[in-house]
Amino acid sequence: MRSAAVVGTGLIGTSIALALRGRGVTTYLIDTNPEAARIAADLGAGIAGRPRVPVDLAVLAVPPQHVAAALKEHQSQDLAHDFTDAASVKELPQRQAARAGCDLTRFVGGHPMGGREQSGPLAAKDDLFQGRPWVLTPSPETRVQAVERARRLAELCGARPVVMAHAEHDRAVALTSHAPHLVSSLLAARLLHGEQTQLGLAGQGLQDVTRLAAGSAELWTDILGSNAVAVADVLAEFALDLHQVVDALRGLGTVREPEQRRAHTELLSTALVRGIQGRARIPARSTTPGPNMSTAFAAAPRGA
Amino acid sequence: MRSAAVVGTGLIGTSIALALRGRGVTTYLIDTNPEAARIAADLGAGIAGRPRVPVDLAVLAVPPQHVAAALKEHQSQDLAHDFTDAASVKELPQRQAARAGCDLTRFVGGHPMGGREQSGPLAAKDDLFQGRPWVLTPSPETRVQAVERARRLAELCGARPVVMAHAEHDRAVALTSHAPHLVSSLLAARLLHGEQTQLGLAGQGLQDVTRLAAGSAELWTDILGSNAVAVADVLAEFALDLHQVVDALRGLGTVREPEQRRAHTELLSTALVRGIQGRARIPARSTTPGPNMSTAFAAAPRGA
Repeated sequence: MRSAAVVGTGLIGTSIALALRGRGVTTYLIDTNPEAARIAADLGAGIAGRPRVPVDLAVLAVPPQHVAAALKEHQSQDLAHDFTDAASVKELPQRQAARAGCDLTRFVGGHPMGGREQSGPLAAKDDLFQGRPWVLTPSPETRVQAVERARRLAELCGARPVVMAHAEHDRAVALTSHAPHLVSSLLAARLLHGEQTQLGLAGQGLQDVTRLAAGSAELWTDILGSNAVAVADVLAEFALDLHQVVDALRGLGTVREPEQRRAHTELLSTALVRGIQGRARIPARSTTPGPNMSTAFAAAPRGA
Repeated sequence: MRSAAVVGTGLIGTSIALALRGRGVTTYLIDTNPEAARIAADLGAGIAGRPRVPVDLAVLAVPPQHVAAALKEHQSQDLAHDFTDAASVKELPQRQAARAGCDLTRFVGGHPMGGREQSGPLAAKDDLFQGRPWVLTPSPETRVQAVERARRLAELCGARPVVMAHAEHDRAVALTSHAPHLVSSLLAARLLHGEQTQLGLAGQGLQDVTRLAAGSAELWTDILGSNAVAVADVLAEFALDLHQVVDALRGLGTVREPEQRRAHTELLSTALVRGIQGRARIPARSTTPGPNMSTAFAAAPRGA
C-alpha cells in the first residue's frame, strides 16, 4: 500500500492516519469539518485535502449511520481503488450501502478494536490499535484485492486482522462493548439522584464501572441505534438476572424464616460467583486469542 | 492513642495495623485464623496475639454479619477500652449489637472508604486509606471518648473522618458502591454466555466495567445481604431505566415510522447524556468534599 485516504479525522481516523504515515504511506485527510482535517495534518497525520489520483485504499472513519452515504459519495468521486470503514457496527452499514447502490465489490467492512474516552484528532495515538483485533467483514461481493488491502491496513497499524460475518461481529460487540457501555451509562445516571454527601463516599470502583459512560453521547446514540436488536437481546437477559437479585435482596430485607433467607443468600452468592467466572473469561490484552486471518478467512461464514 | 488491637487481619485490618505501627502505636493482631495474624505480624503490622491489659481501641475488621458477635466476645474479654469496626454496612451491625447486649457506650461504627480487588493480609498497604473518607456512625449511647479514639484512628491512617447517621451511610454506599458492585457482577456473568471468539473482541472498557466483579463472593454476599433494602431500592430504579432503553432499542429494531424512531433515539440519547452528567458528579479523589468532623458532629442525625 502506497497511498491512502482517511475520511473523518476524529480519534479513530487520525490514529489510523498517524500509523500509516509512520509506515511511509502517503495519506490524505478528509473531513466534513475542514478544521478537523487541518488539525490532523498539523499533528503529522498526512495531507489535508483530496488526492488528485485515486489512492489504494480509503478508510471511512465515520459513525455507523454515515458509512453508506460516505461510501456512495467517495466512490462516485473515485477517491480510492478500494474502500473500508472503521465503524463499530457492521450489518446495518453493509445493508445501507447495498440499498444506496454502492460498488460492493470494492468495499469491505472493518472495525479496529481500540478507543479512548477522549474523542477528536487531538486524542489520537499512532499505537491505538497495537496488538488489538481488527475485524474485517467481507460480503459475498467483496473482491479479494479489497480484503487484502484492508488486511494490510490493519497490519500497518500493528493490529491483528480477524475475519467475521457481519451479524457475528455485531452480536460480539453487543456483548463485550455496546451493552456494557449502556449499563455503565445507566449506572452513572443514577448518581444524579444522589446527594453530594453520598457521592463524597465514592471510590475507585465507581470511577472504573462508570468510565465508559463518559463517551460521546452523539456517537454512542448512533452506535447503539445501529446495533439495536443485538444490544436489546443482551440487556433483556441482563434484566432477567437483575430482577432475580432484586427479588432476593427484597426477600432478605423482609423475610425472617431461615430456610427462605438461605435460598435468597444462595442466589446472591451464585450471582457473584458467576460474575467472577465471567470476568475470568476476558482474554488478557497482550494475548487475546482469536482466529488468524489466513485460517479464519476460508472458514468464516459470509454474507451481510 | 498508645495501643490498639485489630480483630480480623485481612486486607482492611492489616492495612489499618500497618498504618498504626508506622505511627508508633503498639498494635495487637487477632484473627480466628492464627496463620493470618502471624502473616500480618511478619509483614510488620504488629504483635500476633492478645494484649495482657486492655488497649485503648480495638478495631473489628470483620464482615458486617460478624461485627456484633465479635464485639460481644471481645468486650466480655476486656480487649479494649473502646471499640469500633470497619464494616461496609452500619445499621444492621448496630442493631445486632444492641440485641446481643453489647456495651454500646463504648462502641462507635466506622467505615474506612478504601479497598482493593485483592484480599488478605498480603494485599495490605499502610496508605490504603490515605486521603479517603472514614465514616463514623455514633449512636445516641456512644460516649464521647469512643468517638474521639475512632477519629484519632482515622487520622493516624491518613483518612478524613466524616460523621453520618447509620441509615444515611448505608443509603450512600448502596448508591456508590454496593449497587455498582452487583451490576458489575451481573454484567460479567453475561460473559459466560459468550463464545470465546466473541470475547476475543473485548477491550479495556469491558475490563474497567467488570473490575468490581472480581471481588470476594463470600465477603460481598455478606455486605449485600446486610444492606439488602437500600441496594434493592437503587437497583429497582436502575431496572426501570433499563427497561426504557431496552424498549427504545426494540423499537429502533422494528419500527420504520420516522417520528417514532426519533422518539426512541431521543430516549437513548437522553440516557447517555444523563450518564455523562452523573459521572461528572463523582468527586475527584484528592479533593473529595464532605463534612468536616468537628462541624458535622453536632449537626449529624443520631441513632441507629
